[in-house]
Amino acid sequence: MEIQFLGTSSGVPTRSRNMTAIAVRNSGAKTWSLVDCAEGTQHRLQRAGLSPMSLRAIFITHLHGDHCYGLPGLLATAGMLNRREPLVIVGPAPLRAMIECIMAGTQLELPYALDWVAIEALPQRAVLPDLQVRATKLSHRIDCWAYSFTEAAVERRLDRDRLRAGGVASGPAWGEIQQGRDVTLPDGRRIAAADYLAPPRKPRKVIIGGDNDTPSLLAIDARDADLLVHEATYTEEILHKIGPGPQHSSAAMVARFAREAGVPNLVLTHFSPRYLDRPGNGAPSLDDIEREAREHYQGTLALARDLDRYELGKDGVLRLAA
Amino acid sequence: MEIQFLGTSSGVPTRSRNMTAIAVRNSGAKTWSLVDCAEGTQHRLQRAGLSPMSLRAIFITHLHGDHCYGLPGLLATAGMLNRREPLVIVGPAPLRAMIECIMAGTQLELPYALDWVAIEALPQRAVLPDLQVRATKLSHRIDCWAYSFTEAAVERRLDRDRLRAGGVASGPAWGEIQQGRDVTLPDGRRIAAADYLAPPRKPRKVIIGGDNDTPSLLAIDARDADLLVHEATYTEEILHKIGPGPQHSSAAMVARFAREAGVPNLVLTHFSPRYLDRPGNGAPSLDDIEREAREHYQGTLALARDLDRYELGKDGVLRLAA
Repeated sequence: MEIQFLGTSSGVPTRSRNMTAIAVRNSGAKTWSLVDCAEGTQHRLQRAGLSPMSLRAIFITHLHGDHCYGLPGLLATAGMLNRREPLVIVGPAPLRAMIECIMAGTQLELPYALDWVAIEALPQRAVLPDLQVRATKLSHRIDCWAYSFTEAAVERRLDRDRLRAGGVASGPAWGEIQQGRDVTLPDGRRIAAADYLAPPRKPRKVIIGGDNDTPSLLAIDARDADLLVHEATYTEEILHKIGPGPQHSSAAMVARFAREAGVPNLVLTHFSPRYLDRPGNGAPSLDDIEREAREHYQGTLALARDLDRYELGKDGVLRLAA
Repeated sequence: MEIQFLGTSSGVPTRSRNMTAIAVRNSGAKTWSLVDCAEGTQHRLQRAGLSPMSLRAIFITHLHGDHCYGLPGLLATAGMLNRREPLVIVGPAPLRAMIECIMAGTQLELPYALDWVAIEALPQRAVLPDLQVRATKLSHRIDCWAYSFTEAAVERRLDRDRLRAGGVASGPAWGEIQQGRDVTLPDGRRIAAADYLAPPRKPRKVIIGGDNDTPSLLAIDARDADLLVHEATYTEEILHKIGPGPQHSSAAMVARFAREAGVPNLVLTHFSPRYLDRPGNGAPSLDDIEREAREHYQGTLALARDLDRYELGKDGVLRLAA
């Protein structure tokens, strides 16, 4: 599975970071999905080489502007590209009325259908062909959700030792069995595929959180997750200075939760623009966020940068691809 | 007067060009104004070093997304900077309801007031302290206007020859007279300032057009204009291929109009993204737009690039400043 960060700043853009948008793609899939769509997301997509034509669905975590103000422009651009495929939009209930208000005000007519899915209706809809999507309510100043993406199907694996022990010679029969089809061998024996398949690997699962001051709300969803992407807007020090009003998480809060939940990979994002990319002049920097997170979490940790693309392998290992 | 282009592409962004937004500032003024505000304008403002804190007014030419989708984000960012000064927004009537719909949907509360001015009410309102603003209706698929900006006051100039001939010695008296104040000389003579002031220079005037397929609608406003900024979305050849539906101008249409109107400076913008910045592979390029415009116009001509800043001198000469 691939995760590409299109924006990693909270609230306002910086010179190097746009606001939140994250592309998600199942390995090898031609289509991709987008979680959140800040102003300027379509500009980042150009740089990432991700086309609005192959975008399958957009998931909005919450309706703060730094997570959704890029939506009208992206829809318009897909229209100017003459997209015809329907586009799924999953989001908080008021999103649809707001986008329809903007479309009416700017006389935006799209040559493709918008397939609106209310978050509450998500369990009843298989919105993606290859990934199961689940939403978990978070705690923020405005209704906010996390989305998890789990591989809908994993490849079958042959139990080669058993095949050899059973005298099934490698050849076309192995291919049939891997496809789950029973076969008849040249010697007339009938072979049930299920008897010669190894247990499937665990489907990969990625959670992408919205803004949230209570990471433990993800405890159930995180139990079988391979990767958690979560906001870490501040360090503890700044969070205490600002107070709980904005309802964001510190690096320590997220790191502690990820350790307790046993999530093996953690990528932090949505950093307050007060944090410089590199330390200097005694100003707070992302090094502070990283140091604080590492104090509480010993798994694979990364701080996202714009356009970073991560691959989560079938082995559950997270790698920075670009 | 200064004009800075923050976006020069039509419809969709390209790698080098964002969509329309133009900053206007009277020479030496601390505040500035914005004409149109495409998605990504706040990002361009960061690069231009223009702060939302010193922004006085926003003028929207029309409600197509590539001219206004950046407005909510810019308003939000000014709020996060804790702006307190009211912000004037002049635009087509449906703009206010649309922005209020977005503000409600995204729970955007601003620490400053929005001072909405309907275009029709513009003649009754002095929205800028130093520039007179006038709107002219254009011809486009959606209601669209051009805004002209004229210096509200010009400096008084001494008639030095007359002062010397009248035996008024240079000194503090000259300063008083230049301020328009009558003075009593040491020899007791009473001097009326008006008798010793040269005729004032013509106030500078800049027209910034919205999308428009009929440049001659600007004929009256252009008579005393020093600079016309107008869209030239296509060359004639492409315009004829596309047909009149989109209601844009070709380079030739604008150039012919500027010549007939006697406008000494013309800057073209809002180029279809099909035009490459530089010629190559036989694809259409901005050279084609420029060549076509020069065939019809002999004044000072420029094709805008993002972040280009032009200064219109008191001598009426247009210079590229950065």
